[in-house]
Amino acid sequence: MNREQEFLSQLVQPNDSKLVLLVLDGVGDLRNAAQPATALDAAATPHLDALARRSSLGRLEPVAPGITPGSGPGHLALFGYDPTSKEADIGRGVLEALGLGLELAAGEIAARGNFATVDSERNLTDRRAGRPPSSEGQRICALMNEALEREPVAGIEARIYAGEAHRFVLRLRGDCLSAEIRDTDPQQLGVPALPVTGENPAAQATAAQVEKVLTVLRRAIAQEPQANEVLLRGFSALPHLPSFRQLYQLKAGAFAGYPLYRGVASACGMEVVPASKNFAELLETVASRWNDFDFFFLHVKPTDQAGEDGNLAAKAAVLEEVDRALPQLLALKPDVLAITGDHSTPAPMAAHSWHPVPLLISGELAYVDETTAFTEEQCIRGHLGTFPARHLLALMLAHGGRLKKFGA
Amino acid sequence: MNREQEFLSQLVQPNDSKLVLLVLDGVGDLRNAAQPATALDAAATPHLDALARRSSLGRLEPVAPGITPGSGPGHLALFGYDPTSKEADIGRGVLEALGLGLELAAGEIAARGNFATVDSERNLTDRRAGRPPSSEGQRICALMNEALEREPVAGIEARIYAGEAHRFVLRLRGDCLSAEIRDTDPQQLGVPALPVTGENPAAQATAAQVEKVLTVLRRAIAQEPQANEVLLRGFSALPHLPSFRQLYQLKAGAFAGYPLYRGVASACGMEVVPASKNFAELLETVASRWNDFDFFFLHVKPTDQAGEDGNLAAKAAVLEEVDRALPQLLALKPDVLAITGDHSTPAPMAAHSWHPVPLLISGELAYVDETTAFTEEQCIRGHLGTFPARHLLALMLAHGGRLKKFGA
Repeated sequence: MNREQEFLSQLVQPNDSKLVLLVLDGVGDLRNAAQPATALDAAATPHLDALARRSSLGRLEPVAPGITPGSGPGHLALFGYDPTSKEADIGRGVLEALGLGLELAAGEIAARGNFATVDSERNLTDRRAGRPPSSEGQRICALMNEALEREPVAGIEARIYAGEAHRFVLRLRGDCLSAEIRDTDPQQLGVPALPVTGENPAAQATAAQVEKVLTVLRRAIAQEPQANEVLLRGFSALPHLPSFRQLYQLKAGAFAGYPLYRGVASACGMEVVPASKNFAELLETVASRWNDFDFFFLHVKPTDQAGEDGNLAAKAAVLEEVDRALPQLLALKPDVLAITGDHSTPAPMAAHSWHPVPLLISGELAYVDETTAFTEEQCIRGHLGTFPARHLLALMLAHGGRLKKFGA
Repeated sequence: MNREQEFLSQLVQPNDSKLVLLVLDGVGDLRNAAQPATALDAAATPHLDALARRSSLGRLEPVAPGITPGSGPGHLALFGYDPTSKEADIGRGVLEALGLGLELAAGEIAARGNFATVDSERNLTDRRAGRPPSSEGQRICALMNEALEREPVAGIEARIYAGEAHRFVLRLRGDCLSAEIRDTDPQQLGVPALPVTGENPAAQATAAQVEKVLTVLRRAIAQEPQANEVLLRGFSALPHLPSFRQLYQLKAGAFAGYPLYRGVASACGMEVVPASKNFAELLETVASRWNDFDFFFLHVKPTDQAGEDGNLAAKAAVLEEVDRALPQLLALKPDVLAITGDHSTPAPMAAHSWHPVPLLISGELAYVDETTAFTEEQCIRGHLGTFPARHLLALMLAHGGRLKKFGA
């Protein structure tokens, strides 16, 4: 727990208010010569705009001016952690494992795996093995697990967990394993996978064991026509994040359709509730679990996907879909509702960006400013101003009456 | 002196400019469904608004987003200290003692005392002993001091100082006293006062001595019909705050009608000038001492009191009273005048809150923005933006020409 979190946690006073954080992934967008209106400008969102007129608007700076966050740091900041701190450095492997519902123990290592295709000289010809259907991925993962049981590697227990399509997680158990292992994905075609190497001398022993595990895996899939190689990335161990319960005395539920976001939420001590990728359906799940939590993290992914595709119309359409379902969420009468994103994903950039992210906070104690719609431009003028995303949780707790006065 | 203060103090260049900080306690307010206009919106304040039109507006974040400060931290931030730092953690006992004009020495301990009423089984029936008039409080304090002189407790020198009504300060002198003593006020009726205990083993010796002091005090007032018990709170020792002279090379005067604010100012090395609770009268005192200081802290309390009472009309009336007297202050021609609050006290909440606080800075070098009135809504749009309150002093110094360029 860092100094800021310790300070905040001492002020927390639990009550029965319900707080909802709705994350529209990558919602922030760009106005420029090429695109004179953002997705929020372009979308018809009457419910969001009506809500904006009785709420406070503002903007979040995900990490710091000019810094473009990945999904992990973006969400950790929303959850009140300093995304640049060592403790919040959650590896991709761990996120993927948590997202698949694995309960990693301390000292265990996880890596993200990919099936890939290599030619007869073991040079890569497809880094995703033709994106097989998930059922096919599961079949190949089963082959690999059988091989690992037949031919165990001394001193290390390895197991494979199938993800979506060509993705899987490799979990490693053993004494004194190091997570400081480099990726084996060379990030290009026409060359072989990289050998397993440690980031430092102390990690070489683990690297050598992982290389032996890889040999077993490769033998198991040697006859596959497409998925005849594996690439490993993001070796990492569980971080020691203080939980939502420790930090805020909140019983938190995460409603997300995608593994990564479930993973981040799980690392923060939230209970992951399996939820649909469809927002209206996700809200039905939220309604069915309304009495079980006092903090609800709701994740909407397709805003980001449309942004990454550079597709403004698709992004606006997702926002309109969210807007249509919004009355379902409001009907639950959350005491505090914050709507924002983990970063901007401007369509003209087809990528994440550093631009500040629109924010709306509604609730009985929210200052009703003179803004009239949930857009980037209105958010510039809002009462909340522009502030680092890691302070959002404190502000939500305050609006929910969950923070005592500091000092006399 | 923390790193920020050290940096700033090295840039200070004294001159003969006069800086005035007018604190309207709890001035910030809320617009919501229940209260569509704030006190500043509702009040007719022609002088403040005219001043706003030739000044810079902005907002202060007293501590951090979502954090509601007490009066102590709120003022320490306005005076340039980090209110969350250990050095700025001024105990309630010390504040009360300083406010009564006591000069505490290093190592001395102060606690806030209350007269209370107990029944024949020593259970509390009134935690404020019927709020006796101050003259009655002084009589009982004299009784207690006589008893302490008759029956001194070995190793500890105790003395009582009367405050307002049922309040007093207990000052303790001795070798190696600890201030880590818990409150004896149980904060409820029908139970006896708590025994004196230390927060940790090292404080037990002091706790045992304080218990003996209490025995003497109780004997002295045993026959009083109402004030037959004492409760002690906020044991604390003087903090080691760098002074206004050290930090800013300012000769600072504090003009405040209430003890707590005099106490905070005194802990920062300001000279406390006895001043009226009436703002126009307080300004007369300021005028009479205009040549004695180059920094003037002026404190107006009733804005906060009206807010705490949930009385919007009363809060607006206080602002109108301040506005009527404002020409008296402007006639002194301060080089820099900052008007703000130590926190918001929204009438709908009848309590302090975390909402950012309106700020006005006027002076020859203040950027004249397009804002038209001193209101929360206009302050959102002002030139100064929203920033942590602990930076206000630097900004006032800058506007007064009292800061050198940093670097070549």
